[in-house]
Amino acid sequence: MNRVYNFAAGPSAMPEAALRQAAQEMLDFNGSGMSVMEMSHRSKAYQDIFDETEALLRELMHIPDTYSVLFLQGGATGQFAAIPMNLLREGGSADYVDSGNFAHGAMVEAKKYGDIRCVASSKDENYIRIPALDKAAFNPEADYFYITTNNTIFGTRYPELPETGDVPLVADMSSNILSEVFDINRFGVAYAGAQKNVGPAGLTLVIVRRDLLGRARSICPKVMNWTVMTEKGSMLNTPPTYAIYMAGLCMKWLKAQGGVEGIEQVNLEKSKLLYDVLDASDFYRAPVVPAYRSRMNVTFTTPSPELDAAFVKAAAGEGLVSLKGHRLVGGIRASIYNAMPIEGVRKLAEFMKKFEMENR
Amino acid sequence: MNRVYNFAAGPSAMPEAALRQAAQEMLDFNGSGMSVMEMSHRSKAYQDIFDETEALLRELMHIPDTYSVLFLQGGATGQFAAIPMNLLREGGSADYVDSGNFAHGAMVEAKKYGDIRCVASSKDENYIRIPALDKAAFNPEADYFYITTNNTIFGTRYPELPETGDVPLVADMSSNILSEVFDINRFGVAYAGAQKNVGPAGLTLVIVRRDLLGRARSICPKVMNWTVMTEKGSMLNTPPTYAIYMAGLCMKWLKAQGGVEGIEQVNLEKSKLLYDVLDASDFYRAPVVPAYRSRMNVTFTTPSPELDAAFVKAAAGEGLVSLKGHRLVGGIRASIYNAMPIEGVRKLAEFMKKFEMENR
Repeated sequence: MNRVYNFAAGPSAMPEAALRQAAQEMLDFNGSGMSVMEMSHRSKAYQDIFDETEALLRELMHIPDTYSVLFLQGGATGQFAAIPMNLLREGGSADYVDSGNFAHGAMVEAKKYGDIRCVASSKDENYIRIPALDKAAFNPEADYFYITTNNTIFGTRYPELPETGDVPLVADMSSNILSEVFDINRFGVAYAGAQKNVGPAGLTLVIVRRDLLGRARSICPKVMNWTVMTEKGSMLNTPPTYAIYMAGLCMKWLKAQGGVEGIEQVNLEKSKLLYDVLDASDFYRAPVVPAYRSRMNVTFTTPSPELDAAFVKAAAGEGLVSLKGHRLVGGIRASIYNAMPIEGVRKLAEFMKKFEMENR
Repeated sequence: MNRVYNFAAGPSAMPEAALRQAAQEMLDFNGSGMSVMEMSHRSKAYQDIFDETEALLRELMHIPDTYSVLFLQGGATGQFAAIPMNLLREGGSADYVDSGNFAHGAMVEAKKYGDIRCVASSKDENYIRIPALDKAAFNPEADYFYITTNNTIFGTRYPELPETGDVPLVADMSSNILSEVFDINRFGVAYAGAQKNVGPAGLTLVIVRRDLLGRARSICPKVMNWTVMTEKGSMLNTPPTYAIYMAGLCMKWLKAQGGVEGIEQVNLEKSKLLYDVLDASDFYRAPVVPAYRSRMNVTFTTPSPELDAAFVKAAAGEGLVSLKGHRLVGGIRASIYNAMPIEGVRKLAEFMKKFEMENR
């Protein structure tokens, strides 16, 4: 077996320790005589796994009991619809910041359910920065204010969260949840598709301040209704049981790395390794305005699309895979989520220098 | 390792061969150097897995190209809302048959979106049969006609499908899909949560006749929109990649058992083993009217709730687990989906006889 360094943007690399434990327990979890995949979600054995996973997430993110933690399905894209159906009052309005492809998609989907205002956009700059936010443009009566804390495709990140006063901040954190310390109390709702920093695809985390429950529209499908799902402990219907178990194994690994506080330092170091190579080079171009650089998704180009393709191919030959940029922007993207070891990033940094020398 | 016989109603037993292969490939799928769980859903390696799984399902169920096959999230309960949002025209109406708890739940959810008529119900008989259907009560102008082919909690099954003429038949097949031969051409939409007869929880199959696409309401969330999902090959957003892979492994196993045609004979034999014990006994009581007996979920009671509990406990001691009936009906339920080996059912039948002798 020869494991590669997988720089995919999601689904993406997972901790090897979690995968090893999953493989070992696949036919017999903890003497139960069955796989976690085969367990009734109503069994005590499974409820224990579920409860432990929720407790770990609360511990890692310091989530107080004033927030409900939900393990749902449908991905962030499902939440694009769920958010207005759970929060937008009849005749109400919400503010959105258009900082990238998924932020834009969230806004378009929300418009199906009510009055959605775009308070800032960096679309005309091809999303190379988080747009400047003018507080005077915020609607103080908005039902919520929507942001995307990290933009996976373009490789940008909010250096600080907007101040929205009494308007609840709703954040898609799919690509940087658990990667750095956030004060959860700043958010009305924080949510994430699991497949980047949490666990496997098919699981969606929604962390919602309890005072925001009870507002869901009558047209909201039950499986998307945060109030119903809170009452049912995420088990109105069968949850994605195995994905939750895997997320728990990944969180145990994260805790052993010193938790979010510990991994944040590693992530800073990892991203610095790559940005240092980019900044020292006149061969590579890093399009993102430095103040908004993502720590999770490092985007860059070589002098030509042909060289970009040659880079991706040659890197794969050295076990550095899935480095092709998103089709919307081209170029190269190195996604270096929590589970990417620093050794993999070092190897990529060395490869970048070598490739530059050979192709300048 | 000591595997048990797991009679859970879902999530439930899976083929040991599928679990073994998954364990073996967990850290390195087919020389890729990564787990299937870590693969980008946009990679060729993953698309090959996805395409192979769809092809297997089409082969096993003889699904022609006039049907779209979707791999979605949210469970059958998600489809309870998706169905009216995809099929019910503005001002339109649909007919529902109330044959059990999930049929009833589907009807209640659908009422949020339009005019839903209950054409027959066996609720007053505690759902011990499929209700008699009077074709004169069917609305020939209905947008669709809704049934649940097998009722997991009560242990009933439609012995034949209703004739609905030009009105598309929509069927929740969660608990008997792939267990017996169905003519897919009888259905407008056939759908199922995967966690009983297909694969792990967190995956929902929707098989929809293509001429029914294009009707979705504007309020339908994109992730629930069958038309959008058909255009995007189920990948509008990240699908539950690992659950789809596991479903593929289970389908490969099913094909090796002679496909649906082969497993149907085994399932008939398995259910007969248990019903024969019940019919020969004046100790056990099988509440379901014989003509409507499920081949997947065999429900029965002993003379008292105390003995029911003693049965479940003693059976577990012999490696026959998860036999407790659903809380709505109590008693005992043996779910014997495709992956339950006939040896497990034989062992349960022997245990039933022994328990009767010792407790009559």
